[in-house]
Amino acid sequence: MNHILLHTPEGVRDIYGKEYARKLFIEDCLRNKLVSYGYEDIQTPTFEYFDVFSKEIGTTPSKDLYKFFDKEGNTLVLRPDFTPSIARCAAKYFCEESVPVRCCYMGNTFINTSSLQGKLKEVTQIGGELIGDGSVEADAEMINLVIESLLHTGLDHFQVSIGQVEYFKGICEEAGLDEDTELSLREYISAKNYYAAENLLQESGVLQEYCGQLLNTTNLFGGIEEIKEAGKNIRNKRAQDAIARLERLYGVLKLYGNEKYVSFDLGMLSKYRYYTGIIFKAYTHGIGDAIAKGGRYDSLLSHFGKEAPAVGFVAVVDDILEALSRQKIQIPLSLEKQILTYTDGDYTEVLKKAQMLRSSGMAVEMRRKEPKA
Amino acid sequence: MNHILLHTPEGVRDIYGKEYARKLFIEDCLRNKLVSYGYEDIQTPTFEYFDVFSKEIGTTPSKDLYKFFDKEGNTLVLRPDFTPSIARCAAKYFCEESVPVRCCYMGNTFINTSSLQGKLKEVTQIGGELIGDGSVEADAEMINLVIESLLHTGLDHFQVSIGQVEYFKGICEEAGLDEDTELSLREYISAKNYYAAENLLQESGVLQEYCGQLLNTTNLFGGIEEIKEAGKNIRNKRAQDAIARLERLYGVLKLYGNEKYVSFDLGMLSKYRYYTGIIFKAYTHGIGDAIAKGGRYDSLLSHFGKEAPAVGFVAVVDDILEALSRQKIQIPLSLEKQILTYTDGDYTEVLKKAQMLRSSGMAVEMRRKEPKA
Repeated sequence: MNHILLHTPEGVRDIYGKEYARKLFIEDCLRNKLVSYGYEDIQTPTFEYFDVFSKEIGTTPSKDLYKFFDKEGNTLVLRPDFTPSIARCAAKYFCEESVPVRCCYMGNTFINTSSLQGKLKEVTQIGGELIGDGSVEADAEMINLVIESLLHTGLDHFQVSIGQVEYFKGICEEAGLDEDTELSLREYISAKNYYAAENLLQESGVLQEYCGQLLNTTNLFGGIEEIKEAGKNIRNKRAQDAIARLERLYGVLKLYGNEKYVSFDLGMLSKYRYYTGIIFKAYTHGIGDAIAKGGRYDSLLSHFGKEAPAVGFVAVVDDILEALSRQKIQIPLSLEKQILTYTDGDYTEVLKKAQMLRSSGMAVEMRRKEPKA
Repeated sequence: MNHILLHTPEGVRDIYGKEYARKLFIEDCLRNKLVSYGYEDIQTPTFEYFDVFSKEIGTTPSKDLYKFFDKEGNTLVLRPDFTPSIARCAAKYFCEESVPVRCCYMGNTFINTSSLQGKLKEVTQIGGELIGDGSVEADAEMINLVIESLLHTGLDHFQVSIGQVEYFKGICEEAGLDEDTELSLREYISAKNYYAAENLLQESGVLQEYCGQLLNTTNLFGGIEEIKEAGKNIRNKRAQDAIARLERLYGVLKLYGNEKYVSFDLGMLSKYRYYTGIIFKAYTHGIGDAIAKGGRYDSLLSHFGKEAPAVGFVAVVDDILEALSRQKIQIPLSLEKQILTYTDGDYTEVLKKAQMLRSSGMAVEMRRKEPKA
């Protein structure tokens, strides 16, 4: 026997027994919550043409995509992320009259990282997208869905950190930063790498005033009061509007009664280029990465030939599973199956009983009492 | 805009709205039936090392696999089929004490056919495997599961055709056919290509008596009586045992009350090398390919270092969806969602009402009455 045969490739895994039952429970929790808000299921292919995930759309770096070919020689990519696929679908199928569209999806995503990083390369994600509604109420519905979904799985200690990329973009615009510098700066600030950000700004020759404002975004986090304070110190209109919008968002979250789960962070700037308004990430104990994340992406659909505002989130099922396990939170698994044993002599009667129990909704396994000689 | 962006690759598709709701309903039907028989969910990775699907294990031709590489340079393959992955898992995780193991799975499989064939390249499959039980009762449970699962989706006009590869293998062994000739012959007979089979046998110099018996397998199909008749004309022990086993299988299916859905075909010889006993395919009107298929594969686990008999089936969800649609069989979809409209003035009250309805189990979408100016 070839021993490699027993192994799964690095970063992917088999899951079964109680662990998989827990994962399925979490999937149900998340999906049911989305359905209860009127989201409708949609399924896109596991792979897409390379262009759907190209640099312009701004998702995973090309080197981290799993790429391969069809018989016609086209380059295909295992989806690293759902949002571009859903945006493609929305642009293709939904007409003006059908918006707003609420859709939800579940499936696996694939990132070809180096196995040295020890991360899962195939993870199950569930998410929802609300397309054709640019309102703050839509933003709030999305964040509230994240909170209610996580609570529904049994998690209770988590925090949703909310940013607003318009704040940063407004100042960049006023400071006259070119796109490449802005993108590098976003990365440094997002990584809280203050010194690299400072060097970059000094080299770019931006006015000292803007340097200060841009570098200061790394300090602008906390409750809604801190964010309001920050708004008083800025004159840029886009940045002010961004903060005003966060205030209104907070107001709507209070109506849902879930404001205690959120905090704000103007220095949170996603590496995904497509976000245009709020962005958010949910964190909990024991998991380094965000267990759910999302944001507003009002210009993504235009890459697919349609103009429509949109906001969405995705939850990483495998990370929520891990979090629940590390936090020792019990998951109510459905009842165990019943095992009925039989011999050659009573097989007919036992089968009859098993069929009766099954038709009444029970899970029944039939097993031979003594292994046959 | 790049127009390729709106398209999915050839042979894969988006599915949404009522069509996807129907697909999800079928998935639930099939999975619930498996769970009611004590099958436990298992999930394997979407891709595996190439070796798991290599020629020796006898599944899809290498040219029809989607192949790609990880960062370490290993060749990975999108699974074309579940059975080898489940066999790998079973060999890896389940010990002697835990057999028999009943497991079920659901997910997509991928075959890189030429787009000229017009077939789906990504299809959703649901299946079950019963490992560690070599009995005829296990065979019958599997075939009965296929029948009950299909009935559960609403299909009622279908037929499960059952073969037994031991009949053919027994005669081949006695005739002294080498493995390559046997495999070619299997293909010809499976395709009902009588003339190619005849030529091959004449070239191979097999005794005339065996030529007749082997070629005659293409005629051995029908009800259990026809098969019993065939058994009277053969002296080969393996072939006789194969027929005796089919008779016993038929007896157990009568206990389930589902014998009217089956017929027999000794000329049905799967292209998958791993089948060792019964093989079966379920057909219905309007779909050329089998909507469900499976068989016994008692030696497959040994490729993964463990000896255990096993039998399994897989149902092709996309084909069942197509069949139900062509046969105009209604699927009971769950209740539509309720839409509550709001204005800026009554948002708070409408939200309160929506939350109340959602918590009582309803699906409620909130929508602004007039689009905001």
